Amino acid sequence: MARIDNAMPSRILGLDPGLLRTGFGAIGTHGRHRAEALGCGVIRPASSLPMAQRLLQIFNDVSELVAQYQPSLVAIETVFVNSNPRSTLALGQARGAAFAALARAGCEVVEITPLSIKKAVVGTGRASKEQVQAMVCQLLKLPQAPASADAADALACALACWQSQSPMALAAAAPRGLRGVA
Amino acid sequence: MARIDNAMPSRILGLDPGLLRTGFGAIGTHGRHRAEALGCGVIRPASSLPMAQRLLQIFNDVSELVAQYQPSLVAIETVFVNSNPRSTLALGQARGAAFAALARAGCEVVEITPLSIKKAVVGTGRASKEQVQAMVCQLLKLPQAPASADAADALACALACWQSQSPMALAAAAPRGLRGVA
Repeated sequence: MARIDNAMPSRILGLDPGLLRTGFGAIGTHGRHRAEALGCGVIRPASSLPMAQRLLQIFNDVSELVAQYQPSLVAIETVFVNSNPRSTLALGQARGAAFAALARAGCEVVEITPLSIKKAVVGTGRASKEQVQAMVCQLLKLPQAPASADAADALACALACWQSQSPMALAAAAPRGLRGVA
Repeated sequence: MARIDNAMPSRILGLDPGLLRTGFGAIGTHGRHRAEALGCGVIRPASSLPMAQRLLQIFNDVSELVAQYQPSLVAIETVFVNSNPRSTLALGQARGAAFAALARAGCEVVEITPLSIKKAVVGTGRASKEQVQAMVCQLLKLPQAPASADAADALACALACWQSQSPMALAAAAPRGLRGVA
């Protein structure tokens, strides 16, 4: 697996694919101790479109994000399938379109479990969604939380990926804050 | 929805997407009463590959099939999700990659229920898989059954799509055989 060279500036794109909303968040890392948000947002294909067109939009928009941010790594949250088979199928379809776009662009994809994201960003696997989002703001020094929780989740995924590459990164980025909201 | 012009030769690509095996089968139709198999087979991404690479192979191979057969319509069997969430997610991912490739190529996609396929090809919704495959051989005058059941299913899907466009097509193609094996 390719790793980030901590001596060089680097970019990580976090993705949280879904058929209704695909959150994304890109961070730039500078060495082991500093990261900044480069951008975040949500891909929302119109639900009135035919399924193939919705999936094509995810494919195309993910391809554009890769062209825009040129990430060294792409981090995607591991899915733990839920009990609603129709939702699981829809989620799978969205992920299939996103994964195909990433592989076509030659991206290295890292899957990260929700537990790892919570542990990395907040310091405990029992963190709430709100705690994760608050720490995303603090770690990236955002003036306010991203408008969409999906975008914040994608940034959290990118931060956790950075942490997995540079184990002390987040503690250094927020020496007092880390675990402070847990 | 675009329809086949029965006065013109036309091509229909049937697809049966799956992560391990994606069956495909292309037919050429000549007016309302004659169809021939143009080709069929199976896309089998190596299970040793990373997920994103497996999905990219489905995306690329489906794109190539469209370029090769230039179908007027692409027919995909409607999925009725099963009770295994992991299988449903995998199936969804494979379908997502295939749908994105089809939409990117500008294909019109028609979903067809398993019941409609059985009714169209055999004449009864209670037909077995073996009956469907036998009728595929008879309707397309194949010297032997396709080596893969997934390829035969894809041909059946294409035939059912043709039938949905030209309701008497299959009865005309096999005036004695239709329902004969039911």
